[in-house]
Amino acid sequence: MYTLEEIDRILDHCAHLRNLDREPANLYDPIGYMMSMGGKRIRPKLCLLACNLLKEELDDPVLFPAMALEIFHEFTLIHDDIMDRSDTRRGRPTVYKKWDENVAILSGDVMSILAYRYLSHAPADVLPQIFDLFTTTATEVCEGQMFDMNYETLPFITMDDYLAMIGLKTAVLLACSTKMGGLLGGASPEACQALYDFGYRLGIAFQITDDYLDTFGNEKVFGKKIGGDILNNKKTWLLVESFRRADITRKKTLESLLKMEADDPAAKIEAVRQLYVDLGVREAAEAEILAWHRKSLEALARAGFDPARTTEIETFAQQLIHREK
Amino acid sequence: MYTLEEIDRILDHCAHLRNLDREPANLYDPIGYMMSMGGKRIRPKLCLLACNLLKEELDDPVLFPAMALEIFHEFTLIHDDIMDRSDTRRGRPTVYKKWDENVAILSGDVMSILAYRYLSHAPADVLPQIFDLFTTTATEVCEGQMFDMNYETLPFITMDDYLAMIGLKTAVLLACSTKMGGLLGGASPEACQALYDFGYRLGIAFQITDDYLDTFGNEKVFGKKIGGDILNNKKTWLLVESFRRADITRKKTLESLLKMEADDPAAKIEAVRQLYVDLGVREAAEAEILAWHRKSLEALARAGFDPARTTEIETFAQQLIHREK
Repeated sequence: MYTLEEIDRILDHCAHLRNLDREPANLYDPIGYMMSMGGKRIRPKLCLLACNLLKEELDDPVLFPAMALEIFHEFTLIHDDIMDRSDTRRGRPTVYKKWDENVAILSGDVMSILAYRYLSHAPADVLPQIFDLFTTTATEVCEGQMFDMNYETLPFITMDDYLAMIGLKTAVLLACSTKMGGLLGGASPEACQALYDFGYRLGIAFQITDDYLDTFGNEKVFGKKIGGDILNNKKTWLLVESFRRADITRKKTLESLLKMEADDPAAKIEAVRQLYVDLGVREAAEAEILAWHRKSLEALARAGFDPARTTEIETFAQQLIHREK
Repeated sequence: MYTLEEIDRILDHCAHLRNLDREPANLYDPIGYMMSMGGKRIRPKLCLLACNLLKEELDDPVLFPAMALEIFHEFTLIHDDIMDRSDTRRGRPTVYKKWDENVAILSGDVMSILAYRYLSHAPADVLPQIFDLFTTTATEVCEGQMFDMNYETLPFITMDDYLAMIGLKTAVLLACSTKMGGLLGGASPEACQALYDFGYRLGIAFQITDDYLDTFGNEKVFGKKIGGDILNNKKTWLLVESFRRADITRKKTLESLLKMEADDPAAKIEAVRQLYVDLGVREAAEAEILAWHRKSLEALARAGFDPARTTEIETFAQQLIHREK
């Protein structure tokens, strides 16, 4: 079995994606730009780690479908950045900003098609299932993004709404990654379902961690300004849980803080942050992340793999949750 | 074999696409809106007509991949309308205008994924080839659209540039439609290539016809204002051929006409139109369309079908070229 470092190096076999050298240049250069941007390649790694539980060899019929997940993920980021009007990502200009909106729309479009090209390298016997899983997942990701945008204009949402939304927007793609690894490795339907649930619950934990770090993370390590979600009134786990817990007085305080113009962004961030602490939401988030992580490992255990073999994938899951950025 | 009218009714089996009834509504309603907009369904019709040359039954494993072509085509229109800032299509508000840009981006995205779902219904033995053909085509369409946008800012382009650009932007999708029909019908590789060439050349004729009608069509029949391409300085066959033919004096006239502000749109349109007539470009376009049509039929003949069977598809091709809108 491969170590995480070896999996990283296997993924570098697709480094050609960083420089596609095709015409027209302003269609393909943004793809290379995104693929060179230092993405963590979480989804293909999960896919390869899962496949490696069953199969020693991680050759092109496995590697290329795994990369399809990353290509698809990066495509969603290009379009998300247009829709969110985000100027920077990972400290660099977004495609939308560096080129323009039309280029961002079209190079994103061709990336989503490219993902299918990479997917098509899967072995013929599992190709229909893999296409079906990927297409269902890709659809759900779009649904999640639309729900997220729709929720922006609502004063608050329920925890059920939030969990369903991040389930679609984030968790299903991690679930697709782990299940795809199972399919590529020839896992049984039960093991594939277990891998899906593992990835899904890990995805929920991952998104709540993302929300948590945006407010409580270490700015130097996190790589972007703390408190962006607060300034954008984003429906994070922290905000949703706060509304759930707060009495009338605190609800009013929270609502007025959110309505506050960001004349003094630091003050707004600090005030909301403190309210989260006072409401016990900070510890609650930490507990929630651990709970979903634990549930993800329970699902993985259902797949019935030899615990000696699941060390790498469990370590990687741990890193996703106990990260600082 | 089916008549054109019967093919139309078979396509109506996918009328559920006009009302998808899924959440979130603002993701799926635009799809239903586009699919109800009175599109001519040229591409699925070509696919079914081609398949019917070989196969009597046009069941779901044929119909659904054929509809994938229409879904994909409509997706490109949604995104094109954002990029062109077009407010109307077929006399109705574009998705971008009726909803907003973010909805147009995302519902387009989910449509391109939906196209793949429909494609996946193809019979297993031809599925890999069909996916490959579709993915290559879809990529080329994006390339064509980018070249078209890039050319907008150039003062002129060569006829080779123009033909290559419409080849990618328009012709390959018709070629994909006819070849896909061949694959679905079990045609030989040679027949499939012949069908591809037939569709491609027909596509070139179709686009030049489109350019022609925009300037010389009958406004009442055409369904949109005459002269839009002239006002938008679009690189049409007419414009490109004019630059090719014009001497220095006429080139200068043409350049200054194009630079003219559209204070008096009717005057600008009439002046450019007249220049086209004076240069003999109007008749040249008519001859060019006929030439590409003839070449398309030569390609179809190479496929070796019984001429008694090719009547419907030839009639349809004729209608595409000798249409008024």
